[in-house]
Amino acid sequence: MKHRMIKWFGLASVLIFAVLTAGMWHAGAEEGMWTFDNLPLKVLKEKYGFEPNQEWLDHVRLASVRFMDGGSGSFVSPNGLVMTNHHVGVGQLQKISTPEHDYVATGFYAAEQVDELKCADLEVNVLVEMEDVTARIKASVKQDMSDSEALKAREVVIAQIEKESLDKTGLRSNIVNLYHGGEYWLYRYKKYTDVRMVMAPERQAAYFGGDFDNFTYPRYDLDVTFFRVYENDKPVRSDHYLKWNTGGAADGELVFVSGNPGSTDRLYTYAQLEFQRDYNYPMVLKLLRRIISDLREYSRKGAEEERRALIQIFGLANSQKAMSGEYSGLLDEKVMEKRRREEEDFREKIASNAEWREAYANAWETIEDLVALQQEMIETQFYRRFILSRLAGLAQNIVFYVQETEKPDTERLDGYHDSQLEGMRFNLFSPAPIFPDLEEVQIASWMNLVLEELGPEDPFVKTVLNGDSPATAAARLTSETKLIDPDFRKKLVEGGVEAVNECRDPFIVLMCKLEPEIRSQIEWRKENITSKLTPAAERIAQARFAVFGKTVNPDATFTLRLSFGSVKGYPMNGTKAPHQTTLYGLFDRALSFGNQGDYALPQRFWDRKDRLDLSTPVNFVSTCDIIGGNSGSPVINADAEVVGLIFDGNIESLVGRFVYDIEKNRAVSVHTAYITEALRKLYDAGKLADEIQGL
Amino acid sequence: MKHRMIKWFGLASVLIFAVLTAGMWHAGAEEGMWTFDNLPLKVLKEKYGFEPNQEWLDHVRLASVRFMDGGSGSFVSPNGLVMTNHHVGVGQLQKISTPEHDYVATGFYAAEQVDELKCADLEVNVLVEMEDVTARIKASVKQDMSDSEALKAREVVIAQIEKESLDKTGLRSNIVNLYHGGEYWLYRYKKYTDVRMVMAPERQAAYFGGDFDNFTYPRYDLDVTFFRVYENDKPVRSDHYLKWNTGGAADGELVFVSGNPGSTDRLYTYAQLEFQRDYNYPMVLKLLRRIISDLREYSRKGAEEERRALIQIFGLANSQKAMSGEYSGLLDEKVMEKRRREEEDFREKIASNAEWREAYANAWETIEDLVALQQEMIETQFYRRFILSRLAGLAQNIVFYVQETEKPDTERLDGYHDSQLEGMRFNLFSPAPIFPDLEEVQIASWMNLVLEELGPEDPFVKTVLNGDSPATAAARLTSETKLIDPDFRKKLVEGGVEAVNECRDPFIVLMCKLEPEIRSQIEWRKENITSKLTPAAERIAQARFAVFGKTVNPDATFTLRLSFGSVKGYPMNGTKAPHQTTLYGLFDRALSFGNQGDYALPQRFWDRKDRLDLSTPVNFVSTCDIIGGNSGSPVINADAEVVGLIFDGNIESLVGRFVYDIEKNRAVSVHTAYITEALRKLYDAGKLADEIQGL
Repeated sequence: MKHRMIKWFGLASVLIFAVLTAGMWHAGAEEGMWTFDNLPLKVLKEKYGFEPNQEWLDHVRLASVRFMDGGSGSFVSPNGLVMTNHHVGVGQLQKISTPEHDYVATGFYAAEQVDELKCADLEVNVLVEMEDVTARIKASVKQDMSDSEALKAREVVIAQIEKESLDKTGLRSNIVNLYHGGEYWLYRYKKYTDVRMVMAPERQAAYFGGDFDNFTYPRYDLDVTFFRVYENDKPVRSDHYLKWNTGGAADGELVFVSGNPGSTDRLYTYAQLEFQRDYNYPMVLKLLRRIISDLREYSRKGAEEERRALIQIFGLANSQKAMSGEYSGLLDEKVMEKRRREEEDFREKIASNAEWREAYANAWETIEDLVALQQEMIETQFYRRFILSRLAGLAQNIVFYVQETEKPDTERLDGYHDSQLEGMRFNLFSPAPIFPDLEEVQIASWMNLVLEELGPEDPFVKTVLNGDSPATAAARLTSETKLIDPDFRKKLVEGGVEAVNECRDPFIVLMCKLEPEIRSQIEWRKENITSKLTPAAERIAQARFAVFGKTVNPDATFTLRLSFGSVKGYPMNGTKAPHQTTLYGLFDRALSFGNQGDYALPQRFWDRKDRLDLSTPVNFVSTCDIIGGNSGSPVINADAEVVGLIFDGNIESLVGRFVYDIEKNRAVSVHTAYITEALRKLYDAGKLADEIQGL
Repeated sequence: MKHRMIKWFGLASVLIFAVLTAGMWHAGAEEGMWTFDNLPLKVLKEKYGFEPNQEWLDHVRLASVRFMDGGSGSFVSPNGLVMTNHHVGVGQLQKISTPEHDYVATGFYAAEQVDELKCADLEVNVLVEMEDVTARIKASVKQDMSDSEALKAREVVIAQIEKESLDKTGLRSNIVNLYHGGEYWLYRYKKYTDVRMVMAPERQAAYFGGDFDNFTYPRYDLDVTFFRVYENDKPVRSDHYLKWNTGGAADGELVFVSGNPGSTDRLYTYAQLEFQRDYNYPMVLKLLRRIISDLREYSRKGAEEERRALIQIFGLANSQKAMSGEYSGLLDEKVMEKRRREEEDFREKIASNAEWREAYANAWETIEDLVALQQEMIETQFYRRFILSRLAGLAQNIVFYVQETEKPDTERLDGYHDSQLEGMRFNLFSPAPIFPDLEEVQIASWMNLVLEELGPEDPFVKTVLNGDSPATAAARLTSETKLIDPDFRKKLVEGGVEAVNECRDPFIVLMCKLEPEIRSQIEWRKENITSKLTPAAERIAQARFAVFGKTVNPDATFTLRLSFGSVKGYPMNGTKAPHQTTLYGLFDRALSFGNQGDYALPQRFWDRKDRLDLSTPVNFVSTCDIIGGNSGSPVINADAEVVGLIFDGNIESLVGRFVYDIEKNRAVSVHTAYITEALRKLYDAGKLADEIQGL
């Protein structure tokens, strides 16, 4: 599973991919992406006869790694070796590639540490401390404050807590909002930014079956990549690492997944779900269809164009497939009816108790009103901005950076607080290559859509196009900009407001013109939506605690969670899908499609086929509850040994964004046996295999 | 695909599995099970640039074989060698098996002709002549006849034509009703009853994946059996046989299927479909669940019980899976809506032309009335009889045989006309083993259901149970009967009415008591349903000809048809299914399920794995329009060479009983390359491989 993450500029969109949390739907015991402080230990003990102790939990947490690119991973040796998915690492693989050395196509292996290649802009995190700060944050809001004042007070105290923590510990410090305001936690991360590429197979092996097989099973992918984390130019000592178990997990065995699920919408109100169904999904899917089609056209121009657009197209197509599956769930009357009934039951419980009714009952109506208001504004809010362009994103961040950092920390927009600046600069000054011709296509594609939707008289359209066609405007912007050069960007930022105001770079000039509109959008949303939504969502969270206690788990927030379940096949398309696949199946699927296109295996697989034990398990499924962002998570057994590597969910799991169904929802993993078999027999990487196997 | 055929007594049920025909639903050019006299040559030529000539068609027809057990086959050598599916031949394989020689489990191969084993009661047919007799049959009905008189006249002339033809040619002569009365044809068959078993693999190889994988794809089955047809104790000379093509058909290649599809309901009126959905399917599915569960319980008693019930359970589970898929189609509002709209359009066309309106318009209302009447009676008609018991079926046929044959031919019930008696006797006197303990379970299971549904006071229930419980009654009937002995049955039939009336065998005694009720049911149905339904259906058929000409194809009637299409994968469960599978995939699926249960491969596969070319294609799919009864049909290329062997449809094809969808409806075949690879390398049957390959 790929984390469905479309990057816009630094300002995360509240409208799209918003994050919310817990239903029941053949839920069984398995549902839940649990925070490490609140595991359903009783359920675990009753169903599986296993109860992890604190030492086990700490060890697993400290061996788990978050990839800020949008994925998860784990330490698998004491020398900083981190395992994740190929599709999590592929962005970095592309950034260290060149037309001459296309590691995405050929794979990469550093037999010696000295050959390990430093990534352009990869940050990974280890969650070292968690502290419940709900009381402090709630205390910041006083009874007599207006909604806007309360929002401001919350923002200020959050920035303060983060800043204090950073100053005191030097650790990345983030406030995490769980249960949509039910709890606020301070998570402290050890942050690493010197991460080096150790080994990656060819994409054809990692992503065998391409977009067709993506989000499906049975599957045959070697979706693995190894990085090594450095500090002070030396591999870190990772005392908490997961031991390797080549035997894997047996059919029916209890397994855990430790990782960072991106977002789920299981705690949305019904009105919010309808909004997703009727506005958000149709709009985003339309955008995806358009941009993917335009990028594919660009890609057909030549081999280098294909290389440049590959990862971009992969990410977008991945989102498209995931969102199409989710959208089908929203269109499924049974799914919606189930959510409607759950909400009805919940609200009846609240209504049946006078105290609860008084405190919580009208929160749902408040949200209904806010949704109605959002519906009116969504078109202009969605289209009056840039999406997908890295250059536009950089320009916007630079313009806002120099302005915001002149203000006191508590006055700044989110994203520009002191505690956030290091990360912002890491991203702004990344040496990763930017391809202007590719940017041109993306901008033209987007602006064509915006023009169609908003019309030529819209002020945003007029400002961007300035009388030109989208194609001409995109060509002008991308051919003249110097933002491609990280040093240029650095100088601009260092020059502050003055340098930016004097800058004649077309992207910077444009962003300066757009800045008032962007600010007014942000202000409008704060004033009219967020300041009212936040307390309403908080009240629903409190209502949920009142009724269900903490037996529910929070919606995913791209923070560390533990899921559990068992290795298990499922009923599929009239028959059953097995709990695992084997190397025989890989060769079958390749030959069934004539070893062509997305089903062409790298030549080494054919050359070395006879060396392989074809009965080696390749991929397997478990009932663990995961979602995009969990990509690269280790699958571990009760002894906390790695038995697999999460890389996808089956097609039936896509509705899991809204409801979990133990009958068919499955997490798909690479089997540890395939990884070592491949390292030793296909990639001559015996040394690496020795390291992970502790030999 | 297994022909979904539950055998009751000789009297075919009109209520269940009734036969009707053609819609459009992504239909494309591929839809249609065409009679050999009316192929869509223009479509074929336009889409595929191929036009079979008369010689080609005659050759293919004369090489095609119908298995009266419920399947199809083809001559594949000049020496009477016939290829069909294992699951078509498995009933005969069981009949020649014993507890000591269980050929179903071990497979069978006669290396020399002298070792070929004669089947107990297998009849196969070759369609040698087809004659349109519509005019003569319609002429038998005079303007002033009542509905009942007209029905009688039709029955009489049909019996006459069949008798005349049999007397004149000695060929099996059957009137075939096409387009629900639109046309009547006299089909003459060369009939063979000395058919010997040549080769069958183990059922584990033929039916790999069992009921789970049945009606699904991707698939890995060696579902093949070879018989040889004898006459006068010598193999027949089969000049018209299909040449073998080991290379198979390429992805996208035009292929044909020549076989005997059992029944489709594409020409039912909407009212008839609703009746199927609301009455027929729920009732039959309930019966199937019950009997399968009881037989499985019996099966668990021991190895011999398992062997005895195996084929019975297979057939019933096959029906259950097929009908469940079909039922889902009926419950699918989109499918029903499509059929409703088609009928509406058709009726609007009829209404728009004064002549048509006068002649045809009220036929649909007539059928609606008949359906309403059937609904009232269906419960008692369905439950007041025996189902599934071979002994009860034999008893009923004997009782009716002796009575009916005393009447003039034109007065007899259908099934007992002179032209039908040879077939009836072949069945009545079959030496195939009957297992009384298995019969006991079936009768008890059925009567338990009947008792529940009709209650203890129902006259049928009272007559059968005679105060006992279903279990006691079943034990009494089956422990005391001598009907198991074919000689006893022969003597009874030869003794005529007197012998039967004096017979104290409990089944015969019971059937004599039930006879009036059975006759009255038959009479009621003729009088109230068939006599009215026949002319109404005929009028709709004429209306269809008037509007569409002969561009539609008739519903399937278990008579010879030609389908065409191309080898082609399809979108499946989020990804795509390949056009073919390979031997690698067979070993993958076996190992994925731990080589256990339905996924356990015969030991020889493991012992000889290294001899096999694992890239050999195993199964493949095509867009050819088929249904149960097509099992064993040859798949041929434009040169009329065999490239495959139909054995199933995918799960998406089950709705094909009502609507054909080229997008996902696929016929599943065994690839010729797998058959020869297996014969040579797994079964030491090189001699047989030489014969089919003409070496």
